[in-house]
Amino acid sequence: MKTNKLVLIRHGESKWNKLNQFTGWTDVNLSNQGIKEAKLAGKLLKKNNFLFDVCYTSVLKRAIYTLWSILTELEQCWLPIKKTWRLNERHYGDLQGLNKESIISKYGADQVTQWRRSFTAIPPKIQKDKNYSICHDQRYHNLYKDNMPTAESLELTLKRLLPYWEDHIFPDIKKKKRVLVVAHGNSLRALVKYLSNLNNQEVFNLHIPTGVPIIYNFNNNKFSIKYSFLKNE
Amino acid sequence: MKTNKLVLIRHGESKWNKLNQFTGWTDVNLSNQGIKEAKLAGKLLKKNNFLFDVCYTSVLKRAIYTLWSILTELEQCWLPIKKTWRLNERHYGDLQGLNKESIISKYGADQVTQWRRSFTAIPPKIQKDKNYSICHDQRYHNLYKDNMPTAESLELTLKRLLPYWEDHIFPDIKKKKRVLVVAHGNSLRALVKYLSNLNNQEVFNLHIPTGVPIIYNFNNNKFSIKYSFLKNE
Repeated sequence: MKTNKLVLIRHGESKWNKLNQFTGWTDVNLSNQGIKEAKLAGKLLKKNNFLFDVCYTSVLKRAIYTLWSILTELEQCWLPIKKTWRLNERHYGDLQGLNKESIISKYGADQVTQWRRSFTAIPPKIQKDKNYSICHDQRYHNLYKDNMPTAESLELTLKRLLPYWEDHIFPDIKKKKRVLVVAHGNSLRALVKYLSNLNNQEVFNLHIPTGVPIIYNFNNNKFSIKYSFLKNE
Repeated sequence: MKTNKLVLIRHGESKWNKLNQFTGWTDVNLSNQGIKEAKLAGKLLKKNNFLFDVCYTSVLKRAIYTLWSILTELEQCWLPIKKTWRLNERHYGDLQGLNKESIISKYGADQVTQWRRSFTAIPPKIQKDKNYSICHDQRYHNLYKDNMPTAESLELTLKRLLPYWEDHIFPDIKKKKRVLVVAHGNSLRALVKYLSNLNNQEVFNLHIPTGVPIIYNFNNNKFSIKYSFLKNE
């Protein structure tokens, strides 16, 4: 049976990655470096003859623009793209928009490391007035009556991502579709934890680099536990 | 009852529009002028406060890139985009890739005008070897066993477009969704003929300019027969 590959890619560097600010659900654009990373990821996939059947991404522009760049380089812009808030970055609550150094000064390095790296720590909830603009953003109108996140641990991120994985992405893979997912540092950490069955300590140390394709093999209805990075030799 | 608007836009100028070549299903990129036209269409829609719920386009890059530019300007890149070959340009058969002047020399101006403007004239069929690359293009794999066009009149273009209109686009409009369609000179001529109930002489004289939003009002479950162009005042 032919191996099917699942490809995961974190968006290119964003303007707030560059400024060392917590971003979360804030809809920040790619930096110039991020645009370059996205194009390079596309060129690399093309050089390695990757073809896809369907693409998934979040509703945040840094992921969408990364995907569009990749598809342009791959000459596969006609592929279907499914966008969902469930692939969004983890909601960073009241830390969104703040500089990481200033948060460390306020809360201490240990606390901030817990919020950033642990599976279960939940950052402080976003204040109601700060959340106003997101709550009234048209892209989240289906979420109003349900569970608009106000702050998420990695665990909560995985919990809201999994139903979409189970209902949409995984069924496509089982149908032998070649799937490309472009998402975020923490939504991908959550997914990799799940697919590779990482324990909480392993996920603590897991970092997803921007713009580097992560490859999972899918054989006999099962994923390989191990993934690899596609890099220029 | 609030008026719902349907917006139709022809892609920006393509490289072959510029070279005066018949394009049809050939997947030609936008010219620099075309990229500018696409951005301008997006800025104009933004200035006029257009919001959409769903977008439709073809599987040809000149339409897709135009839509992506428009959504970038509108800051609505997160909208769902549905792509279908049924919104593709009319298939220009054996004329594809040839210069319009050279075709006139070969067949005479009257014949070429009929092929270009009339509702029923079908251009010469594409030769089997020329059609090879399109038939094996992954984006058309669902079409293999059905009706891969070899040359289309405007009438045939409308015939293959209508089922998609009836099954997907029109139901969205009836559900009060605000719909943006980015397509091609002739697939839009066909749609405008249908929506505005034009006769064959009227459609003969109908020209759809590149990058100019065409607005239809939808009230009490019916379209206005008349459309308007959105232009910078």
